[in-house]
This record gives sequence, C-alpha cells and structure tokens, in this order.
Amino acid sequence: MHVKVYLAGPEVFLPNAVEIQREKAALARAAGFTPLVPGDLEIPPAATKHERGLAIYAVDEGMMMACDMIIANLTPFRGISADVGTVFELGFMCGRGKHAYAYTNTSRSYYERILNDHYMGEAALRADGRMAGPDGISIEDFDMADNLMLDGGVLRRDGTLVQREVPEAARLTDLEAFKECLAIAARQHLG
Amino acid sequence: MHVKVYLAGPEVFLPNAVEIQREKAALARAAGFTPLVPGDLEIPPAATKHERGLAIYAVDEGMMMACDMIIANLTPFRGISADVGTVFELGFMCGRGKHAYAYTNTSRSYYERILNDHYMGEAALRADGRMAGPDGISIEDFDMADNLMLDGGVLRRDGTLVQREVPEAARLTDLEAFKECLAIAARQHLG
Repeated sequence: MHVKVYLAGPEVFLPNAVEIQREKAALARAAGFTPLVPGDLEIPPAATKHERGLAIYAVDEGMMMACDMIIANLTPFRGISADVGTVFELGFMCGRGKHAYAYTNTSRSYYERILNDHYMGEAALRADGRMAGPDGISIEDFDMADNLMLDGGVLRRDGTLVQREVPEAARLTDLEAFKECLAIAARQHLG
Repeated sequence: MHVKVYLAGPEVFLPNAVEIQREKAALARAAGFTPLVPGDLEIPPAATKHERGLAIYAVDEGMMMACDMIIANLTPFRGISADVGTVFELGFMCGRGKHAYAYTNTSRSYYERILNDHYMGEAALRADGRMAGPDGISIEDFDMADNLMLDGGVLRRDGTLVQREVPEAARLTDLEAFKECLAIAARQHLG
C-alpha cells in the first residue's frame, strides 16, 4: 500500500531548494513513503504575478488532497513562528483528517521566543494575571513549540512533534528531526 | 437558516480581548450570522500548562467543526505575517471545504513587508532570477497580502480578502475591514 506524504516547509525559499527537497523526498522514499513536494509539478502559465500565485496554490492544494499524511517543518522562519504557508498546509491537512507530523529545529519554547526574541525580555504580569509585553499583548505560555493550534493540531491526532536543538547556521537545512518524524510515522503507518 | 461563522484572529491576546471579541460577535449577529469565538466556552481543568493548551485546542477545533464559515483577521502580528494560530484555523476551515473570508489592516503587500520590514530594503537578484535577502532566502512576489497559501486558500473558494490601510496604533483593533467581510459574506450566503 502506498502512503503518500506531503512534505511541507520553508525549504522552497532556500537557495538550495531543489537539492534539499530532493533529499527530503529520497529520505521519505527510503522510509517506505511516496513523497509529494510543493514545486514538484509544472505550474500552468499565468498572465500576472497574482494569477501565478493562485495557480501555485491550486497545484499545492491538489497535492495535499492526494496525500494521506503531512510532515511539516515548523522551524521558526523570518521571526518567532513557523512559516505561515506551512502552517496553512498543516491546518488544511488536519481539517481533512489526514495524519499529521511536524518537527522544529529549535528546543526553545514559543513562550521563550516571544519573551526573549520579540520583547527582548521586557514583559510583566497584566491585570488579568497573564504575562504580556510592553504593548500589553499577552504571551502564550503552554510549554509548546509554537502557537497552541499548531502543537494541538498535531498532538490531538496520532501525530508527533519532534523538537531538536540545531545551531542557527543549519537550522533551516538540518534533516535529523525530519528523519525522526519519518521513522515514527513509518512505525505507525507502514508495514 | 443559521449560518455559523468562526471569528478567528489574534484579538484573543489583546488586553481588551473580551470587549473586542464581544464587539465582533455583536457585529456578526447584526449582519445575520451566528458567531462562534475562541474563548467563548469554558475550558475543562488541566493538570499542566501543556494539557491546558491541548484542551483549548480541542474546544477551538470543536467550534470550527460546528461552523459553516470562517472570517480570519490576517493583520500582521508580531512580525511580517499573520498570527500562525489564525492561519492554522484558516487552513483547517479551507481543508473542510467551509466558506472562507479574511481581512488585513494593511494595504502593503507581503513582498513589501519582507523586503522592507524584514530585510530593511537589502535584497538582490539571485542566480535563479528571484529576489532574495542577504541570507539568500527568496522573497515571495505575487502581489498578495501574505504567503500565497493564505490568499490562495481564500480566493480559490468563493471568498474575499479585504485589505485596508489602518494606522499602526489601531491596526489590531480596527473593525472596518471586518465589517466589509461581513457585508460581502452576508450578500453571498444569507437571505
């Protein structure tokens, strides 16, 4: 039986996007899965940038519909949270009731990142008992890797969220946590 | 006929969360909808922060399952993109085939925000012809409000994404674009 897995993550933006996506697909195949990767398919021609964006969306949505599972790279991307494109895809697959796995190449919690990376440690208790930044906006504190909808979406199914500390220089390219997801998902859904 | 709409957005983190969520719900009711808002329901007690986070997820997912439509506030939150919790919810509802509307209180494109707010204008053409930051990571350029999965998820259905320029001080609280979404959604799905 073929189990098709959608490999979501911000790799598509990297200078070595093709190589790293090829490597992830090869690892997924070696684990026994049939991988589908955004960018795999030809995008039909479009008259404007906006139409091209919509055409890419349509191809990606079609690939998600064809898959049984998602493995999402939730490593923080250009800020304190995961890439929003990847997060949409994780939500989409959870909404469809597909299997969901995720990994992030930092062991620091979302709370720590909001507090220290966004507010530079400047926070205080609000009148309602929640920690908040100087702007009064509360700091989510649930010992989770990212916003609770992301962790919850994975963990409220049969999924696993792998957190691993990777030095900053390799944070967007290191594949050890991805391999760990593959191994766990293979034990649960193959053979 | 009752059309139930899930009101998603980062309002839940604001110091006046209760008031603004109440105001959004009142506006939705006035437009003819039955609103459901994260935080509306009692969260069952939990032994740890992590378990409490999962319990909140479960309540929010249950509310989404009960709704026919989402109106998502995609205004940039703590960075260049929408709140990832809201993005997960938008993806979830698109995955379930529900109606999806969204708004953002900035008229600046995702491209502009990555280029100017994240890379401070420092970008150059990459060997593959894409614009990229000094880190070599490409800058998405599709004349869209945010990552193409967000705009695409809304526009590839019957949805509308309302963009409106709001001064920074009121960006997370202004409800004009939300009202516009309600009016459009009401014309399409009520009466």
